Amino acid sequence: MKVKKADEIEAKPAQMEGAVGVSVRVLIHEPDGATNFRMRLFELDPGGNTPLHEHDWEHEVYVLDGSGLVVTEAGEHMASAGMCVFVPAGEKHQFRNTGARAWKFLCLVPVTAK
Amino acid sequence: MKVKKADEIEAKPAQMEGAVGVSVRVLIHEPDGATNFRMRLFELDPGGNTPLHEHDWEHEVYVLDGSGLVVTEAGEHMASAGMCVFVPAGEKHQFRNTGARAWKFLCLVPVTAK
Repeated sequence: MKVKKADEIEAKPAQMEGAVGVSVRVLIHEPDGATNFRMRLFELDPGGNTPLHEHDWEHEVYVLDGSGLVVTEAGEHMASAGMCVFVPAGEKHQFRNTGARAWKFLCLVPVTAK
Repeated sequence: MKVKKADEIEAKPAQMEGAVGVSVRVLIHEPDGATNFRMRLFELDPGGNTPLHEHDWEHEVYVLDGSGLVVTEAGEHMASAGMCVFVPAGEKHQFRNTGARAWKFLCLVPVTAK
């Protein structure tokens, strides 16, 4: 078993072209023994966004604090604390912090994600 | 994309022999299009616990509120809001709410979990 405090894990700028004001903490991943999926904690500054992008793996998201928009080609949805979001593989999507404070959410991906 | 409010999803008593005061909301699973892992939200009443048990799939846990003990044969660890826990496949474990209020955590498992 491994137990960690999320805020003691280093937050690093997201390595995604077009990301603005996005940091990521990798909470659980392969070095912990994870063989199927990874848990990451994203934090978007007010006005921050991920790029509008797609990839062949899904996202399972749970919003911890703040709120923002999840944008897809089919429309956009507000997601605030206590909400979860499933983005299937292959769907274009973007996260935009439209709120006044940091938007924090867990975003889990399979270990096949790059 | 699917977006849901966790508290609008029905909480059902956990279907685990020996569980006391444990309810589960299934936030994201196969009917949503999930093919690799499921997101569930557990809530343990004060004094509640899961059984000490093991299985051949892992848990990735993030504590949302409250606190309690994660017990294994190697020892026990307190886990409170903002902490994450990885329980590998095959490790005996139990969750015990030792706090005065509900202990709420996300617990993700691969879709191969029963």
